[in-house]
Amino acid sequence: MEFKINSKSFDKILSKVIPAVPTRTPMAVLENFLFEIKDGLLTVQATDLEISLKSSQNVAADSNAKMVVQAKLLHDVVRSLPDIQLSISTDSNSRLKLKTDKGVYHISYFSPEDFPEIPVVARDKEIIIASDDLKRAFDKTSFAMSKEDMRPAMTGTLLEFAKDGLRFVATDGHRLVKYVNKSILTDYTEQYIIPERAISVLSKLLSDGDVKIYLSKTHASFITGDIEFITRLIGEKYPAYNSVIPLENENLLTVDRSELLSTVKRMLIFSSGTSKQVKFSISADNLEISAENIDTGSNAVENVQCEYSGEAMDIGFNTAYMNDILSHLDSEKVIFKLHSPTKACIIEPDKTSENEEVMMLLMPVRLNN
Amino acid sequence: MEFKINSKSFDKILSKVIPAVPTRTPMAVLENFLFEIKDGLLTVQATDLEISLKSSQNVAADSNAKMVVQAKLLHDVVRSLPDIQLSISTDSNSRLKLKTDKGVYHISYFSPEDFPEIPVVARDKEIIIASDDLKRAFDKTSFAMSKEDMRPAMTGTLLEFAKDGLRFVATDGHRLVKYVNKSILTDYTEQYIIPERAISVLSKLLSDGDVKIYLSKTHASFITGDIEFITRLIGEKYPAYNSVIPLENENLLTVDRSELLSTVKRMLIFSSGTSKQVKFSISADNLEISAENIDTGSNAVENVQCEYSGEAMDIGFNTAYMNDILSHLDSEKVIFKLHSPTKACIIEPDKTSENEEVMMLLMPVRLNN
Repeated sequence: MEFKINSKSFDKILSKVIPAVPTRTPMAVLENFLFEIKDGLLTVQATDLEISLKSSQNVAADSNAKMVVQAKLLHDVVRSLPDIQLSISTDSNSRLKLKTDKGVYHISYFSPEDFPEIPVVARDKEIIIASDDLKRAFDKTSFAMSKEDMRPAMTGTLLEFAKDGLRFVATDGHRLVKYVNKSILTDYTEQYIIPERAISVLSKLLSDGDVKIYLSKTHASFITGDIEFITRLIGEKYPAYNSVIPLENENLLTVDRSELLSTVKRMLIFSSGTSKQVKFSISADNLEISAENIDTGSNAVENVQCEYSGEAMDIGFNTAYMNDILSHLDSEKVIFKLHSPTKACIIEPDKTSENEEVMMLLMPVRLNN
Repeated sequence: MEFKINSKSFDKILSKVIPAVPTRTPMAVLENFLFEIKDGLLTVQATDLEISLKSSQNVAADSNAKMVVQAKLLHDVVRSLPDIQLSISTDSNSRLKLKTDKGVYHISYFSPEDFPEIPVVARDKEIIIASDDLKRAFDKTSFAMSKEDMRPAMTGTLLEFAKDGLRFVATDGHRLVKYVNKSILTDYTEQYIIPERAISVLSKLLSDGDVKIYLSKTHASFITGDIEFITRLIGEKYPAYNSVIPLENENLLTVDRSELLSTVKRMLIFSSGTSKQVKFSISADNLEISAENIDTGSNAVENVQCEYSGEAMDIGFNTAYMNDILSHLDSEKVIFKLHSPTKACIIEPDKTSENEEVMMLLMPVRLNN
């Protein structure tokens, strides 16, 4: 088997596929690329059994071949080369031979038989979404996923096809984000849960153009450019998130987002005890924000201008969660919808684009004093 | 006690001094700044007992004060503030009070009595050197210091006042770098050994202007801008490095540095076994470079153009050390001065500026085959 390929195009393929190669695994075969030449098409695949990546390119090869090759070694060599023509062939010692004008590199390959089967997702139902839109939806929601395995459904992000559009929901029980892309309209209602690792790898892959999404009961496939990304879905029922979203939070607090965020970041420095608490003392035109660290005998108080319609109220939040929420919004102002110091608080941008809806919810914490 | 200071100038002082605060120490008092107001001069100091940093600024304070304050907490608060006037005072509860238009922050302070005495270096002998020149000397040499504590002298960089200029020498027994700044001429011969941590902290501090250096038998002081850096010296005898530098390496190999470096970086990928070996097969107009990883059954061979006067020779090097040396040179070409495959090899730039001399030495390794 022999073919020629430019080092930089080869690097591009390998760099796209390598994120699916696990860094630590008891199954050594997963540390390899599955490398296939079939009828003039070079296909490179990798999987960690949860996610898999696949990229292809046409090459003028003189025969077919299928093998596994150490992913890190091959990738390291190819990306270290300057922009040159590479001639790739196999030798009689089961080695892949990479040849340039000045050098020759040999890398052992092995039989592909132990490499796990990569699932195929049927392409009967297709959803098309702009890469930017999908990336934005994940950016807005995925920070709120649970890091604890106790309830597996909550360790992923929900994709829900609903009447109002494609919903993205993430929650860890303390906070919840619902993001709706209103331009994806379907005639059915369905739920899929994407695992955390899939979202993190996929978000890095997304750049220009559209993404085609295919879904089965167990897997999702995302195709963008010349790359296919497949992930296992979390096969659990997502919690009935709508029931925790309060409908009657009548007290509205409007604040400049970046000013509030900057204050909350300073409060983070002081609320570093176990409670990580920040106190919002809300009155008609002033929001007093305070935090205290009893261990170090330090405290902080700041005043932030606001508009507020409702009864004066002291309410406590986890400072890190508040920081997360404000960091993941991008409007000039944010609106807090409050009911009482013990009920869930809704935080929303004051303005959004026509095509989207953003709702963040944060449970308050009981104040120390 | 009360004074006003701009948040950004205060941040500048604290940011300069905080590198001397140890991150982990059994002596809790070292996690503090020593904070002093005396006759209108604010001085902030920190030390980890090996190095110390000190910076001062004039402030209009109404009284004197001396205390220790948690370094990280104070620095975190001050750098998180926007560009704003800060009013700093002490309250009756032993707390430092930082006040802005919008907020108040309290941080506990303690009596300074447990804070260690910071050594004073007499200013009788002064050496002045441009910051850039000192930084360059450390950059060229310090990578070759030993990481092993067995021979303490070699864990530092030697500063030697000699007839030909100020010499900087570092070695770990496998490689040695001698860098001479010929513009620093003194009428005495003396040796001082600067510890690794001091060089790493000092290199980051050096920016514009000159550095004034003062030396005692036990300590060195470096003053640049409004900051004084003091380090303990390593009180050992530096090895007689001149005796290992061969004088009669008659075989000269001249190679393009960046081409060779790029090849050596690729060899690094293959020589990842225990030996980390790269083989140079040198002949009149060709340098063949090869490496092999027996564990993974992979190998690499490249040819690099060269000029060579001498007998054809196969010589082995540690690939990582060769990479270090070539990375720390900056000439277009490098000259290898060789004698035999078992004798120290000298690597030098083909051209240097008038004011400097650069010599790197690398011991070969025994070839596997």
